[in-house]
Amino acid sequence: MRMYDLILKKREGQALTDEEIAFLISGYTAGEIPDYQMSAMLMAIYFKGLSQHETGVLTHCMAHSGDMVDLSSIPGIKVDKHSTGGVGDKTTMIVAPIVASCGVPVAKMSGRGLGHTGGTVDKLESIPGLRTDIEPQRFLEIVKEIGIAVVGQSGNLAPADKKLYALRDVTATVDSIPLIAASIMSKKIAAGADCILLDVKTGSGAFMKTEEEAIQLAQTMVSIGEHVGRKTVALITDMDRPLGRAIGNALEVQEALETLSGQGPEDLTQVCLQLAANMLYLAEKGDMEECLKLAQEAVHSGKAKEKFAQMVSAQGGDPSVIFHPERLAQAPYSQVVTAPIDGYLTHMDTQQCGIASVLLGAGRETKEAPIDFSAGIILKRTIGQWVNQGEPIAVLYSSRPESFEGAQSLLLQSMTIGDQPPAPERLIYARVSSYGVEKMNPHGSN
Amino acid sequence: MRMYDLILKKREGQALTDEEIAFLISGYTAGEIPDYQMSAMLMAIYFKGLSQHETGVLTHCMAHSGDMVDLSSIPGIKVDKHSTGGVGDKTTMIVAPIVASCGVPVAKMSGRGLGHTGGTVDKLESIPGLRTDIEPQRFLEIVKEIGIAVVGQSGNLAPADKKLYALRDVTATVDSIPLIAASIMSKKIAAGADCILLDVKTGSGAFMKTEEEAIQLAQTMVSIGEHVGRKTVALITDMDRPLGRAIGNALEVQEALETLSGQGPEDLTQVCLQLAANMLYLAEKGDMEECLKLAQEAVHSGKAKEKFAQMVSAQGGDPSVIFHPERLAQAPYSQVVTAPIDGYLTHMDTQQCGIASVLLGAGRETKEAPIDFSAGIILKRTIGQWVNQGEPIAVLYSSRPESFEGAQSLLLQSMTIGDQPPAPERLIYARVSSYGVEKMNPHGSN
Repeated sequence: MRMYDLILKKREGQALTDEEIAFLISGYTAGEIPDYQMSAMLMAIYFKGLSQHETGVLTHCMAHSGDMVDLSSIPGIKVDKHSTGGVGDKTTMIVAPIVASCGVPVAKMSGRGLGHTGGTVDKLESIPGLRTDIEPQRFLEIVKEIGIAVVGQSGNLAPADKKLYALRDVTATVDSIPLIAASIMSKKIAAGADCILLDVKTGSGAFMKTEEEAIQLAQTMVSIGEHVGRKTVALITDMDRPLGRAIGNALEVQEALETLSGQGPEDLTQVCLQLAANMLYLAEKGDMEECLKLAQEAVHSGKAKEKFAQMVSAQGGDPSVIFHPERLAQAPYSQVVTAPIDGYLTHMDTQQCGIASVLLGAGRETKEAPIDFSAGIILKRTIGQWVNQGEPIAVLYSSRPESFEGAQSLLLQSMTIGDQPPAPERLIYARVSSYGVEKMNPHGSN
Repeated sequence: MRMYDLILKKREGQALTDEEIAFLISGYTAGEIPDYQMSAMLMAIYFKGLSQHETGVLTHCMAHSGDMVDLSSIPGIKVDKHSTGGVGDKTTMIVAPIVASCGVPVAKMSGRGLGHTGGTVDKLESIPGLRTDIEPQRFLEIVKEIGIAVVGQSGNLAPADKKLYALRDVTATVDSIPLIAASIMSKKIAAGADCILLDVKTGSGAFMKTEEEAIQLAQTMVSIGEHVGRKTVALITDMDRPLGRAIGNALEVQEALETLSGQGPEDLTQVCLQLAANMLYLAEKGDMEECLKLAQEAVHSGKAKEKFAQMVSAQGGDPSVIFHPERLAQAPYSQVVTAPIDGYLTHMDTQQCGIASVLLGAGRETKEAPIDFSAGIILKRTIGQWVNQGEPIAVLYSSRPESFEGAQSLLLQSMTIGDQPPAPERLIYARVSSYGVEKMNPHGSN
């Protein structure tokens, strides 16, 4: 088999066979296929796509290119969750404890932030003492003991994906739906859970800017799940505005705690309850209505918050922050941003808003850059609300007061204030499963 | 300027600016842009194409990436010729002496054979003693003295093309018309002639399988010529059968000599006279009719053959072979191939026929392989002729009799014999210049 022939075949729009895809991934991972041939192949895939079957096989090969996590020693159906990334997305810190407190084990590996989006691992590490670099054996023990652990990726998980992603990143071949789907799903499959709930974000702060693209990505990932025998469901959720009001690591932990106490912002609360209900459904805890009730009860009873405290403690963190959030990192400087004119807040370029938080120190400008856990933004107004000129619209937090000017300017640029109220918000656009696409009403029920 | 942004731009179908193309070529030639980014760019160009302007700028940058041959010390209008390659294409050995004998200097660099097509440099080297590795200074001197020299490529001509071609060759990005056109024209422009005559072959033995593709390639190259101020004309000629009857180096020299003596096969003679007439026309020797007469007279008078003898002598070869072709390499073995059934020879897969000659030793199976100058094929029948079962259809020549079986089988496979005579042959399909495309009648006049 020659790589040249496979490039030509794909360039001509033909489907690669299972053996050809296996050759492609094993050869590339082993360094036998050079980058310059793989990048030509990736560009050909960008233009000609991959069939559902090809995407499934590709994902399988990528998942099996390294270690496969074995969660079989943990009793019960293990459900993983993945978000495609957004601004203010602290759902894992809320959803995982809800689900675990309902008796469904959550053994989750999360990522760090890069670019305008944050990462759960960074957010958790803003809790004093909490570690996410936990050895695989200890990780399993924690899940067996308390039903939940959220750690960073360890071991040699899907090395083919790592190598391919690095190449796509410098050859303008990232935004191909089958390649995105294979990348996400290969890591989730290697991570060992039985079922996967995907939170596919769409809107100005998401990688998928339109609902159509988001649904297409979700369908591709659900089809991959089918292919490899992992039950997969996706919710298409809104990222046309930041989720909740807090952006930034410690600020988001605090908002997550408020939400686990039933005191969180309405949008964040609703999205988390729906995500949790879908995870419980995948774990066969009842029909969707029953699962939603289970999730609500976990919050109202305090069980979910208690589970979060157990997790913090098991991972070496100080559980007292759960009840004393003021012990989280506090920014030494803050600045109020006021509305420049009267009007309705009609639109936010959410990606720009995320970049403003990075400027304040909440994210990484390069892979190695440190994070200021205390930095970020609290929004005082959200889309659809009226603001009067001079009233606070947001508060910026940072250890670097010199960053306020740039961040404020970017934040104000990201906001559109107009005469007419915008269309009402939609939180959850659709639910995608192997049965098809169910469009949702504005608050997430179908 | 970042290569990533240029790949993305081209992927989205946008035109690159002159500065961006210059950055691309200088950065790649200098090794600052890695192969894996360039191959992604090449695949994006394959799918999205290049505008006429982009192709012109690309060619200019590729031509200027290395040495530029300066022919200004040779008086008169210098006309170069390039063939896109075919089977039995010995036209340069006929056309260049005709043109030079009419007073138009020919300072030509030619290539070696690779794959199923031969190369003029190999053919000339089958003349005992003749050298094609001539120093640039001596090359110019020969042209000044006798008006003609045909040598191999020397110096650092269009290194960007060399590097790009090697990458295209392993990434399935060779067959893109703007890239082919830029590759050919960059070398011709660097080679220094004032005008360029292109012989774009089409048919089963050519790289361009259809007339439409051939015309498109020709138009692209003519437009590049306009862009860089080199007058360029292209003839679209037939390669649906081998040109002439001889395939193989010494065999082709012999047929070229017959043609220069006015005794060559009709198809080869007509194509050469048209090519020569067009070169004379580019050199402003008269209108097309006058130029055709000049070319015919050069053959009939023996001037052209005499010019070829002068060239052989100046390049160190034994000029006596001109009048004693039996002194050319003679194959120790030969085998007659007979017609398996009665019928008209209706079609030849000319590429396969070329591969049969390579098997006999006439071409290279790898870049470093030696050539058996005596090896090849003489066709006894050509398309349109009737053959009786058992009659000779071709004779194979080789130093390796063990190659006869495979070559005979391939040659017979390449031929279709049927009940009905095929459509009459067409030698020259069209003439493409900056004035547009003129379709030609079957024998080349318009």
